[in-house]
Amino acid sequence: MNTSNRPKILVTNDDGIFAPGIFALSQAMEAVGEVYVVAPDAERSAVGHAITLSDPLRVWEFEKNGSFFGWAVNGTPADCVKLAVKALLDFKPDLVVSGINLGPNTAMNVIYSGTVSAATEGTILGIPSIAFSLSTFRKTDFSFAQKVARQVARQVLQNGLPEDTLLNVNIPALPESEIKGIKITRQGKGRYEEILEKRVDPMKRTYYWLGGKKLILDTDEDVDEVAVMNGYVSITPLHYDLTDYRFLKQLKTWDLE
Amino acid sequence: MNTSNRPKILVTNDDGIFAPGIFALSQAMEAVGEVYVVAPDAERSAVGHAITLSDPLRVWEFEKNGSFFGWAVNGTPADCVKLAVKALLDFKPDLVVSGINLGPNTAMNVIYSGTVSAATEGTILGIPSIAFSLSTFRKTDFSFAQKVARQVARQVLQNGLPEDTLLNVNIPALPESEIKGIKITRQGKGRYEEILEKRVDPMKRTYYWLGGKKLILDTDEDVDEVAVMNGYVSITPLHYDLTDYRFLKQLKTWDLE
Repeated sequence: MNTSNRPKILVTNDDGIFAPGIFALSQAMEAVGEVYVVAPDAERSAVGHAITLSDPLRVWEFEKNGSFFGWAVNGTPADCVKLAVKALLDFKPDLVVSGINLGPNTAMNVIYSGTVSAATEGTILGIPSIAFSLSTFRKTDFSFAQKVARQVARQVLQNGLPEDTLLNVNIPALPESEIKGIKITRQGKGRYEEILEKRVDPMKRTYYWLGGKKLILDTDEDVDEVAVMNGYVSITPLHYDLTDYRFLKQLKTWDLE
Repeated sequence: MNTSNRPKILVTNDDGIFAPGIFALSQAMEAVGEVYVVAPDAERSAVGHAITLSDPLRVWEFEKNGSFFGWAVNGTPADCVKLAVKALLDFKPDLVVSGINLGPNTAMNVIYSGTVSAATEGTILGIPSIAFSLSTFRKTDFSFAQKVARQVARQVLQNGLPEDTLLNVNIPALPESEIKGIKITRQGKGRYEEILEKRVDPMKRTYYWLGGKKLILDTDEDVDEVAVMNGYVSITPLHYDLTDYRFLKQLKTWDLE
């Protein structure tokens, strides 16, 4: 095989370069193209679309099983994608994939998600991009998720994506035999009912810690988290034009001058 | 005046509680209602919609001109809003305002913006919310921006906002006499042409620093950054359903099973 004709795939995540999910994703992508890993040096979950402006970014080579695996960066997932494309790689990747995240990135979680943010950044840089998340927080078998990742990546490379669109893929944590199929979905409205627990530290100082439980506020089958709950792989096309076009017209009637 | 009937307004920002912009905004809001300030203890710009899950949040009382001004939090703008509503205040505010940011939050900057993120969080918590930014990075006269903030805040309190909609207000850094008026706008596509500068530190280690220059990719007058450039106050309604509905249908035709 002439490797130079294989698609070049940038792999990143928000759980950090040590996470089993990024190793699983990079392995899956080996079957699809040439793999380049650039990922945070530690967990950067729930960082939203953060970028690092006021600090230097540093890069370390990271080994796995005795050979070079990728570059670790002291930054956010969006930083990693920018740094890879603008500095570390001397070519523009054909695809950016992010994950495989432990924990779903559905409904309101999408806007807090570092995994999705990396794919958003790839899209902004003009590269078709996909975020992959597995609906469990426990160490797990990634083999079905890897199969999904290969399949979706191949379809994106074949069909392309619109200029401003990325894909957000959520995979149920079920054995393949229990998976019902694939559903194209929309982002749900479900969010966390949050509690800020007030606690006291060993030095008797007060602190707060964010916790809470998930509220599922949708029942429609075409909503991302409902599809996953029903045993479907959910694929949501996302964009980052946040304009609320429904409300634009009404706002023009306000007395603002 | 019976103060208990006045609207309760939560004021926050991403430049930090020390910033002149939040002082200007809290002063402006005094004319509209009862003001409560909860803001980051230091600059948290370009943090996107980050929240702090893996660390405790701590709160300090912060004074200004010899009296209590507000609470400083070691967290992001979104953390501040969650903490204020879920722990520090014993009532639900009637309005969340964020800013006045130094520097525009238009076009692609919207998705990196901590200022906008605070207003997004307010909206998620069911509170009408507004982000205010002034289009200059220099210390400046906030008096016209304060006037705009009062006016928009009063209109939001009077008219309300749809459940999932926030307002993103950008104000030109011009004397009031040069302001052309107010435009209701949509989010533009302009972004930064980024450079990751490779540098060497005093210990001879390589590091990278993100820089670049703004590209304005729109010319339509109803785009946020074009309106500001033309001397208008820009008000964009935003939401956080990121689903790309245009592409949903086409995606269903892909060969994914």
